[in-house]
Amino acid sequence: MKIIEASQKYRIEMEKVLKKDRFDHTLGVAYTAANMAFVFDEDIEKAVIAGMLHDCAKCIPHSEQIKICKKYGVELTDIEMRNQKLIHAKAGMCLARHKYDIDDPYILDAIRYHTTGRPDMTKLDKIIFTADFIEPNRKMLKDMDVIRKEALSDLDRAVYHILKNSLDYLGSQDDEMDPMTIKTYEYYAKIVNTDN
Amino acid sequence: MKIIEASQKYRIEMEKVLKKDRFDHTLGVAYTAANMAFVFDEDIEKAVIAGMLHDCAKCIPHSEQIKICKKYGVELTDIEMRNQKLIHAKAGMCLARHKYDIDDPYILDAIRYHTTGRPDMTKLDKIIFTADFIEPNRKMLKDMDVIRKEALSDLDRAVYHILKNSLDYLGSQDDEMDPMTIKTYEYYAKIVNTDN
Repeated sequence: MKIIEASQKYRIEMEKVLKKDRFDHTLGVAYTAANMAFVFDEDIEKAVIAGMLHDCAKCIPHSEQIKICKKYGVELTDIEMRNQKLIHAKAGMCLARHKYDIDDPYILDAIRYHTTGRPDMTKLDKIIFTADFIEPNRKMLKDMDVIRKEALSDLDRAVYHILKNSLDYLGSQDDEMDPMTIKTYEYYAKIVNTDN
Repeated sequence: MKIIEASQKYRIEMEKVLKKDRFDHTLGVAYTAANMAFVFDEDIEKAVIAGMLHDCAKCIPHSEQIKICKKYGVELTDIEMRNQKLIHAKAGMCLARHKYDIDDPYILDAIRYHTTGRPDMTKLDKIIFTADFIEPNRKMLKDMDVIRKEALSDLDRAVYHILKNSLDYLGSQDDEMDPMTIKTYEYYAKIVNTDN
Protein backbone atom coordinates (compact mmCIF):
# COMPACT_ATOMS: atom_id res chain seq x y z
CA MET A 1 0.00 0.00 0.00
CA LYS A 2 1.26 3.55 -0.66
CA ILE A 3 1.72 5.50 2.57
CA ILE A 4 -0.93 8.05 1.60
CA GLU A 5 -3.40 5.20 1.09
CA ALA A 6 -2.67 3.87 4.60
CA SER A 7 -2.93 7.42 6.02
CA GLN A 8 -6.32 7.92 4.41
CA LYS A 9 -7.76 4.49 5.11
CA TYR A 10 -7.11 4.57 8.85
CA ARG A 11 -7.73 8.31 9.21
CA ILE A 12 -11.22 7.81 7.84
CA GLU A 13 -11.83 4.74 10.05
CA MET A 14 -10.58 6.49 13.20
CA GLU A 15 -12.65 9.61 12.64
CA LYS A 16 -15.74 7.33 12.82
CA VAL A 17 -14.90 5.77 16.21
CA LEU A 18 -12.91 8.40 18.15
CA LYS A 19 -14.02 11.56 19.93
CA LYS A 20 -12.70 14.79 18.42
CA ASP A 21 -9.74 15.39 20.77
CA ARG A 22 -8.75 11.72 20.63
CA PHE A 23 -8.86 11.82 16.83
CA ASP A 24 -6.49 14.80 16.63
CA HIS A 25 -4.23 13.12 19.20
CA THR A 26 -4.24 10.05 16.94
CA LEU A 27 -3.20 12.08 13.87
CA GLY A 28 -0.44 13.59 15.98
CA VAL A 29 0.80 10.16 17.07
CA ALA A 30 0.70 8.69 13.54
CA TYR A 31 2.69 11.55 11.99
CA THR A 32 5.08 11.90 14.92
CA ALA A 33 5.75 8.15 14.65
CA ALA A 34 6.40 8.61 10.91
CA ASN A 35 8.91 11.39 11.62
CA MET A 36 10.63 9.18 14.20
CA ALA A 37 10.70 6.44 11.55
CA PHE A 38 12.62 8.87 9.28
CA VAL A 39 15.28 9.32 11.95
CA PHE A 40 15.55 5.73 13.20
CA ASP A 41 15.21 3.86 9.87
CA GLU A 42 11.88 2.29 10.73
CA ASP A 43 9.26 1.28 8.14
CA ILE A 44 7.20 4.47 7.66
CA GLU A 45 4.02 2.68 6.64
CA LYS A 46 4.08 0.48 9.75
CA ALA A 47 4.67 3.55 11.93
CA VAL A 48 1.68 5.34 10.34
CA ILE A 49 -0.62 2.32 10.70
CA ALA A 50 0.36 1.58 14.31
CA GLY A 51 0.05 5.26 15.20
CA MET A 52 -3.37 5.61 13.58
CA LEU A 53 -4.71 2.46 15.29
CA HIS A 54 -3.02 2.62 18.71
CA ASP A 55 -6.08 4.08 20.48
CA CYS A 56 -8.74 2.46 18.25
CA ALA A 57 -10.48 0.97 21.33
CA LYS A 58 -10.10 4.03 23.57
CA CYS A 59 -13.59 5.49 23.09
CA ILE A 60 -15.41 2.17 23.67
CA PRO A 61 -16.83 1.60 27.21
CA HIS A 62 -14.54 -0.45 29.48
CA SER A 63 -17.17 -3.21 29.78
CA GLU A 64 -17.11 -3.58 25.99
CA GLN A 65 -13.29 -3.54 25.90
CA ILE A 66 -13.31 -6.43 28.42
CA LYS A 67 -15.74 -8.38 26.23
CA ILE A 68 -13.52 -7.84 23.18
CA CYS A 69 -10.46 -9.19 25.03
CA LYS A 70 -12.46 -12.22 26.26
CA LYS A 71 -13.83 -12.90 22.78
CA TYR A 72 -10.32 -13.12 21.35
CA GLY A 73 -8.81 -15.01 24.28
CA VAL A 74 -6.60 -12.17 25.56
CA GLU A 75 -6.25 -12.46 29.34
CA LEU A 76 -6.57 -9.43 31.58
CA THR A 77 -4.59 -9.08 34.80
CA ASP A 78 -6.06 -8.22 38.20
CA ILE A 79 -4.48 -4.77 37.92
CA GLU A 80 -6.11 -4.17 34.53
CA MET A 81 -9.48 -5.18 36.03
CA ARG A 82 -8.96 -2.67 38.85
CA ASN A 83 -7.58 0.13 36.60
CA GLN A 84 -9.64 -0.43 33.48
CA LYS A 85 -8.27 2.45 31.47
CA LEU A 86 -5.22 0.24 30.88
CA ILE A 87 -7.36 -2.27 28.94
CA HIS A 88 -7.70 -0.19 25.76
CA ALA A 89 -4.23 -1.25 24.61
CA LYS A 90 -5.07 -4.99 24.58
CA ALA A 91 -8.59 -4.36 23.25
CA GLY A 92 -7.05 -2.12 20.58
CA MET A 93 -4.71 -4.91 19.53
CA CYS A 94 -7.75 -7.24 19.17
CA LEU A 95 -9.65 -4.70 17.06
CA ALA A 96 -6.58 -3.94 14.93
CA ARG A 97 -6.32 -7.68 14.21
CA HIS A 98 -9.96 -8.63 13.74
CA LYS A 99 -11.75 -5.40 12.76
CA TYR A 100 -9.02 -3.60 10.79
CA ASP A 101 -7.34 -6.77 9.43
CA ILE A 102 -3.80 -6.05 10.56
CA ASP A 103 -1.94 -9.35 10.67
CA ASP A 104 1.59 -8.01 11.21
CA PRO A 105 2.58 -9.00 14.79
CA TYR A 106 5.12 -6.15 14.86
CA ILE A 107 2.30 -3.58 14.46
CA LEU A 108 -0.02 -5.48 16.83
CA ASP A 109 2.67 -5.59 19.55
CA ALA A 110 3.30 -1.85 19.23
CA ILE A 111 -0.42 -1.26 19.88
CA ARG A 112 -0.55 -3.77 22.74
CA TYR A 113 2.41 -2.28 24.61
CA HIS A 114 1.92 1.42 23.89
CA THR A 115 0.68 2.23 27.41
CA THR A 116 2.99 0.25 29.69
CA GLY A 117 5.91 -0.50 27.40
CA ARG A 118 7.77 -3.76 28.02
CA PRO A 119 11.42 -4.67 28.58
CA ASP A 120 13.42 -5.01 25.35
CA MET A 121 10.83 -3.30 23.17
CA THR A 122 11.04 -3.50 19.39
CA LYS A 123 11.94 -0.28 17.59
CA LEU A 124 8.29 0.20 16.57
CA ASP A 125 7.11 -0.42 20.17
CA LYS A 126 9.45 2.34 21.33
CA ILE A 127 8.35 4.72 18.57
CA ILE A 128 4.63 4.35 19.30
CA PHE A 129 5.15 4.46 23.09
CA THR A 130 7.15 7.68 22.69
CA ALA A 131 5.04 9.31 19.96
CA ASP A 132 1.97 8.78 22.16
CA PHE A 133 3.60 10.87 24.87
CA ILE A 134 5.17 13.67 22.80
CA GLU A 135 2.80 14.32 19.89
CA PRO A 136 2.20 18.05 19.34
CA ASN A 137 -1.34 18.16 20.76
CA ARG A 138 -0.19 16.89 24.18
CA LYS A 139 -0.03 19.46 26.94
CA MET A 140 3.42 20.48 28.15
CA LEU A 141 4.21 17.97 30.88
CA LYS A 142 7.46 18.18 32.89
CA ASP A 143 10.60 18.07 30.68
CA MET A 144 8.44 17.81 27.52
CA ASP A 145 10.75 20.05 25.48
CA VAL A 146 13.76 17.89 26.37
CA ILE A 147 11.92 14.59 25.79
CA ARG A 148 10.69 15.80 22.38
CA LYS A 149 14.27 16.44 21.29
CA GLU A 150 15.43 13.06 22.67
CA ALA A 151 12.58 11.35 20.80
CA LEU A 152 14.11 12.51 17.51
CA SER A 153 17.75 11.77 18.39
CA ASP A 154 18.11 9.13 21.15
CA LEU A 155 15.14 6.76 21.36
CA ASP A 156 16.18 4.70 24.41
CA ARG A 157 16.83 7.86 26.39
CA ALA A 158 13.41 9.24 25.44
CA VAL A 159 11.74 5.98 26.54
CA TYR A 160 13.63 6.04 29.83
CA HIS A 161 12.82 9.71 30.45
CA ILE A 162 9.10 9.20 29.81
CA LEU A 163 8.98 6.15 32.10
CA LYS A 164 10.87 7.96 34.86
CA ASN A 165 8.52 10.94 34.75
CA SER A 166 5.44 8.70 34.48
CA LEU A 167 6.47 6.71 37.56
CA ASP A 168 7.13 9.93 39.49
CA TYR A 169 3.69 11.19 38.44
CA LEU A 170 1.84 7.91 39.05
CA GLY A 171 3.48 7.63 42.48
CA SER A 172 1.66 10.81 43.44
CA GLN A 173 -1.75 9.56 42.17
CA ASP A 174 -4.29 7.04 43.45
CA ASP A 175 -4.16 4.90 40.28
CA GLU A 176 -2.49 1.55 40.76
CA MET A 177 0.72 1.20 38.78
CA ASP A 178 1.07 -1.64 36.27
CA PRO A 179 4.12 -3.73 37.26
CA MET A 180 5.02 -3.92 33.54
CA THR A 181 5.67 -0.16 33.62
CA ILE A 182 8.10 -0.64 36.52
CA LYS A 183 9.85 -3.58 34.81
CA THR A 184 10.17 -1.52 31.63
CA TYR A 185 11.58 1.42 33.56
CA GLU A 186 14.18 -0.79 35.28
CA TYR A 187 15.21 -2.30 31.92
CA TYR A 188 15.71 1.10 30.23
CA ALA A 189 17.34 2.66 33.29
CA LYS A 190 20.01 -0.04 33.00
CA ILE A 191 20.47 0.51 29.25
CA VAL A 192 20.72 4.28 29.52
CA ASN A 193 23.08 4.15 32.49
CA THR A 194 25.27 1.56 30.74
CA ASP A 195 25.50 3.91 27.75
CA ASN A 196 26.92 6.72 29.88
CA MET B 1 -4.85 28.97 21.70
CA LYS B 2 -3.96 25.45 22.86
CA ILE B 3 -2.18 23.52 20.11
CA ILE B 4 -4.97 20.93 19.89
CA GLU B 5 -7.45 23.78 19.31
CA ALA B 6 -5.34 25.11 16.42
CA SER B 7 -4.96 21.55 15.03
CA GLN B 8 -8.71 21.05 15.08
CA LYS B 9 -9.73 24.47 13.84
CA TYR B 10 -7.57 24.41 10.72
CA ARG B 11 -7.97 20.65 10.13
CA ILE B 12 -11.73 21.13 9.92
CA GLU B 13 -11.37 24.20 7.65
CA MET B 14 -8.91 22.48 5.32
CA GLU B 15 -11.00 19.33 4.97
CA LYS B 16 -13.74 21.59 3.50
CA VAL B 17 -11.58 23.16 0.79
CA LEU B 18 -8.94 20.56 -0.15
CA LYS B 19 -9.17 17.39 -2.23
CA LYS B 20 -8.58 14.17 -0.29
CA ASP B 21 -4.91 13.59 -1.20
CA ARG B 22 -4.10 17.27 -0.67
CA PHE B 23 -5.79 17.15 2.74
CA ASP B 24 -3.70 14.19 3.90
CA HIS B 25 -0.58 15.88 2.53
CA THR B 26 -1.55 18.95 4.58
CA LEU B 27 -1.89 16.93 7.78
CA GLY B 28 1.51 15.42 7.04
CA VAL B 29 3.08 18.87 6.57
CA ALA B 30 1.49 20.33 9.72
CA TYR B 31 2.67 17.50 11.96
CA THR B 32 6.07 17.17 10.30
CA ALA B 33 6.54 20.92 10.83
CA ALA B 34 5.58 20.45 14.49
CA ASN B 35 8.18 17.68 14.89
CA MET B 36 10.79 19.91 13.26
CA ALA B 37 9.74 22.65 15.71
CA PHE B 38 10.55 20.23 18.57
CA VAL B 39 14.08 19.80 17.25
CA PHE B 40 14.82 23.40 16.24
CA ASP B 41 13.10 25.26 19.12
CA GLU B 42 10.44 26.81 16.94
CA ASP B 43 6.98 27.80 18.19
CA ILE B 44 4.92 24.60 17.77
CA GLU B 45 1.59 26.36 17.35
CA LYS B 46 2.94 28.58 14.56
CA ALA B 47 4.40 25.50 12.84
CA VAL B 48 1.03 23.69 13.03
CA ILE B 49 -0.94 26.70 11.74
CA ALA B 50 1.47 27.45 8.87
CA GLY B 51 1.58 23.75 7.94
CA MET B 52 -2.21 23.40 7.99
CA LEU B 53 -2.73 26.54 5.86
CA HIS B 54 0.24 26.40 3.48
CA ASP B 55 -1.81 24.93 0.58
CA CYS B 56 -5.16 26.53 1.49
CA ALA B 57 -5.44 28.02 -2.05
CA LYS B 58 -4.16 24.95 -3.89
CA CYS B 59 -7.52 23.48 -4.92
CA ILE B 60 -8.94 26.77 -6.22
CA PRO B 61 -8.77 27.34 -10.03
CA HIS B 62 -5.75 29.40 -11.14
CA SER B 63 -8.01 32.15 -12.51
CA GLU B 64 -9.55 32.50 -9.05
CA GLN B 65 -6.13 32.50 -7.38
CA ILE B 66 -5.10 35.38 -9.67
CA LYS B 67 -8.23 37.32 -8.69
CA ILE B 68 -7.50 36.80 -5.00
CA CYS B 69 -3.96 38.17 -5.40
CA LYS B 70 -5.27 41.18 -7.36
CA LYS B 71 -7.97 41.86 -4.78
CA TYR B 72 -5.38 42.09 -2.01
CA GLY B 73 -2.78 43.99 -4.05
CA VAL B 74 -0.24 41.17 -4.29
CA GLU B 75 1.67 41.45 -7.57
CA LEU B 76 2.33 38.42 -9.74
CA THR B 77 5.46 38.08 -11.82
CA ASP B 78 5.57 37.21 -15.52
CA ILE B 79 6.90 33.77 -14.59
CA GLU B 80 4.01 33.17 -12.20
CA MET B 81 1.58 34.16 -14.97
CA ARG B 82 3.24 31.65 -17.31
CA ASN B 83 3.59 28.87 -14.69
CA GLN B 84 0.40 29.41 -12.73
CA LYS B 85 0.80 26.53 -10.30
CA LEU B 86 3.32 28.78 -8.52
CA ILE B 87 0.56 31.27 -7.65
CA HIS B 88 -1.09 29.19 -4.91
CA ALA B 89 1.59 30.26 -2.41
CA LYS B 90 0.80 33.99 -2.73
CA ALA B 91 -2.96 33.35 -3.00
CA GLY B 92 -2.67 31.11 0.08
CA MET B 93 -1.00 33.91 2.00
CA CYS B 94 -3.91 36.22 1.05
CA LEU B 95 -6.51 33.68 2.19
CA ALA B 96 -4.63 32.94 5.40
CA ARG B 97 -4.69 36.67 6.17
CA HIS B 98 -8.19 37.58 5.05
CA LYS B 99 -10.24 34.37 5.21
CA TYR B 100 -8.55 32.58 8.14
CA ASP B 101 -7.63 35.75 10.09
CA ILE B 102 -3.92 35.06 10.52
CA ASP B 103 -2.20 38.36 11.20
CA ASP B 104 1.23 37.04 12.19
CA PRO B 105 3.62 38.06 9.35
CA TYR B 106 5.98 35.22 10.36
CA ILE B 107 3.27 32.63 9.54
CA LEU B 108 2.14 34.53 6.42
CA ASP B 109 5.71 34.65 5.07
CA ALA B 110 6.17 30.90 5.63
CA ILE B 111 3.07 30.29 3.49
CA ARG B 112 4.14 32.81 0.83
CA TYR B 113 7.62 31.34 0.37
CA HIS B 114 6.89 27.62 0.83
CA THR B 115 7.24 26.81 -2.90
CA THR B 116 10.27 28.81 -4.02
CA GLY B 117 11.97 29.57 -0.71
CA ARG B 118 13.92 32.85 -0.51
CA PRO B 119 17.44 33.80 0.51
CA ASP B 120 17.92 34.14 4.29
CA MET B 121 14.66 32.40 5.17
CA THR B 122 13.26 32.60 8.71
CA LYS B 123 13.34 29.38 10.73
CA LEU B 124 9.61 28.89 10.13
CA ASP B 125 10.04 29.51 6.36
CA LYS B 126 12.65 26.75 6.30
CA ILE B 127 10.53 24.36 8.35
CA ILE B 128 7.44 24.72 6.12
CA PHE B 129 9.49 24.62 2.90
CA THR B 130 11.18 21.40 4.10
CA ALA B 131 8.13 19.75 5.71
CA ASP B 132 6.25 20.27 2.43
CA PHE B 133 8.88 18.19 0.64
CA ILE B 134 9.48 15.40 3.18
CA GLU B 135 6.09 14.73 4.83
CA PRO B 136 5.34 11.01 5.09
CA ASN B 137 2.72 10.88 2.32
CA ARG B 138 5.19 12.16 -0.31
CA LYS B 139 6.50 9.60 -2.74
CA MET B 140 10.15 8.57 -2.40
CA LEU B 141 11.99 11.09 -4.55
CA LYS B 142 15.78 10.91 -5.00
CA ASP B 143 17.71 11.04 -1.68
CA MET B 144 14.43 11.29 0.27
CA ASP B 145 15.68 9.06 3.09
CA VAL B 146 18.78 11.24 3.54
CA ILE B 147 16.84 14.52 3.28
CA ARG B 148 14.30 13.30 5.86
CA LYS B 149 17.10 12.69 8.36
CA GLU B 150 18.72 16.06 7.58
CA ALA B 151 15.35 17.76 8.09
CA LEU B 152 15.36 16.62 11.71
CA SER B 153 19.01 17.35 12.45
CA ASP B 154 20.47 20.03 10.10
CA LEU B 155 17.87 22.37 8.66
CA ASP B 156 20.08 24.44 6.32
CA ARG B 157 21.52 21.29 4.80
CA ALA B 158 18.02 19.88 4.22
CA VAL B 159 16.94 23.14 2.53
CA TYR B 160 20.04 23.08 0.32
CA HIS B 161 19.59 19.41 -0.58
CA ILE B 162 15.93 19.91 -1.54
CA LEU B 163 16.76 22.96 -3.70
CA LYS B 164 19.63 21.17 -5.39
CA ASN B 165 17.47 18.16 -6.27
CA SER B 166 14.55 20.38 -7.32
CA LEU B 167 16.76 22.37 -9.70
CA ASP B 168 18.18 19.15 -11.16
CA TYR B 169 14.62 17.87 -11.64
CA LEU B 170 13.17 21.14 -12.97
CA GLY B 171 16.09 21.41 -15.40
CA SER B 172 14.87 18.23 -17.04
CA GLN B 173 11.24 19.46 -17.31
CA ASP B 174 9.46 21.97 -19.55
CA ASP B 175 8.25 24.10 -16.62
CA GLU B 176 9.94 27.46 -16.35
CA MET B 177 12.03 27.85 -13.22
CA ASP B 178 11.28 30.68 -10.79
CA PRO B 179 14.45 32.81 -10.42
CA MET B 180 13.70 33.00 -6.67
CA THR B 181 14.35 29.25 -6.47
CA ILE B 182 17.75 29.75 -8.09
CA LYS B 183 18.63 32.68 -5.80
CA THR B 184 17.60 30.63 -2.78
CA TYR B 185 19.70 27.71 -3.94
CA GLU B 186 22.75 29.94 -4.41
CA TYR B 187 22.30 31.44 -0.94
CA TYR B 188 22.06 28.05 0.82
CA ALA B 189 24.83 26.50 -1.28
CA LYS B 190 27.12 29.22 0.09
CA ILE B 191 25.97 28.66 3.70
CA VAL B 192 26.34 24.89 3.57
CA ASN B 193 29.71 25.06 1.87
CA THR B 194 30.95 27.66 4.37
CA ASP B 195 29.93 25.31 7.19
CA ASN B 196 32.10 22.49 5.89
